[in-house]
Amino acid sequence: MLGGTGDEGFGLALRWAKHGHEIIIGSRSLERARTAAQNSAKLTGSDSVSGLVNEDAASKADIIVVSVPFGGLVETLRTVKRSLRQGHIVVNLTVPLETTVGGRATRTLGVWAGSAGELVSNLVPKGVRVVSAFNNVSAELLNDLSREVDCDVLVCANDEDAKKLVSGLVRALPGARAVDAGLLENSRTLEQLTALLVSLNIRYGVKSAGIRITGINPVS
Amino acid sequence: MLGGTGDEGFGLALRWAKHGHEIIIGSRSLERARTAAQNSAKLTGSDSVSGLVNEDAASKADIIVVSVPFGGLVETLRTVKRSLRQGHIVVNLTVPLETTVGGRATRTLGVWAGSAGELVSNLVPKGVRVVSAFNNVSAELLNDLSREVDCDVLVCANDEDAKKLVSGLVRALPGARAVDAGLLENSRTLEQLTALLVSLNIRYGVKSAGIRITGINPVS
Repeated sequence: MLGGTGDEGFGLALRWAKHGHEIIIGSRSLERARTAAQNSAKLTGSDSVSGLVNEDAASKADIIVVSVPFGGLVETLRTVKRSLRQGHIVVNLTVPLETTVGGRATRTLGVWAGSAGELVSNLVPKGVRVVSAFNNVSAELLNDLSREVDCDVLVCANDEDAKKLVSGLVRALPGARAVDAGLLENSRTLEQLTALLVSLNIRYGVKSAGIRITGINPVS
Repeated sequence: MLGGTGDEGFGLALRWAKHGHEIIIGSRSLERARTAAQNSAKLTGSDSVSGLVNEDAASKADIIVVSVPFGGLVETLRTVKRSLRQGHIVVNLTVPLETTVGGRATRTLGVWAGSAGELVSNLVPKGVRVVSAFNNVSAELLNDLSREVDCDVLVCANDEDAKKLVSGLVRALPGARAVDAGLLENSRTLEQLTALLVSLNIRYGVKSAGIRITGINPVS
């Protein structure tokens, strides 16, 4: 979990740890990673959470979740590049919000590759599979373990097996469903949705706006 | 209702006519407009549906709904431009799907203005207010009057009064809620959502995928 000390990453780490997954919280700072791991252990009662610097976290994990501010995404991937190997799955949560350049969280920046998910895909070594998921799940909901996660998790990737594996991780979020959102290029829409949800949060004075897809029956 | 002979426009016309609104179905062909109006009257039992060519329909209406293939959008607006006057509301449903150039309905074309909604806004006379709405409502659902419209209708515009008026039109769709999606620039996300929903329809073998926003309580 690269960027596991931030709200979104930490919330997911909590849910997954509570569900029994082994979690390594990564950070640029070993101290902050360890502190977050200790807090997570306290909140979940799980002893399967540890803290490491990003490159060591990436090296030890099978699935590498990236949840960093967009301004640090490329640098983070450069840092862990040598830790990535064939078969690794990288799940990108990072959204190119305009806040990156001092703008609004209700807008996105244009990314040459099309989306942050596709940018990540261009930066990882061959054989590493990139998945976009969890971009639209409220950090507020994730961090409140007493609440259901009332939304769908849109998952897109070019590799079907990776998509299935990551969809399985949605089971740790009670109330949420994994929805197969197709190829990685659909990250463009998923990331814009994040900005739209921020705008709905502001407009409706809430913190946990989410998205559901109606009219389908996802088998998860 | 410009493009009211197409599936989406016709479905909306049905719902609105049934709800008691006066509807003018517009088309390039007077004959097709009249036939669609007669069919609509038969299906809804309403006698408040008429058919006219687009420019006459626009001239007589207060709210002008545009639901044409993206390839014909600019031409349609040119045709009706002289019918548009101060205070008119134009609701754009048209989405720049890649099918316009022989591509896929699961992808969108880049539009210089940012979105079709913003393009429409650039093409109408000053004082005409543009609203994006109903872009994500399944034509299948709209046309089956026996079914509830199980989705939210995201509405965005720069003019708050126009947005409220159009949001009120959602009441004709039982089951649907109007959600205030902010400024017209958010049409970018709304239009991409249409392509995502097409992709979900294909993937899940359905025809009526829709979107709901969770965690908010829209007052409509």
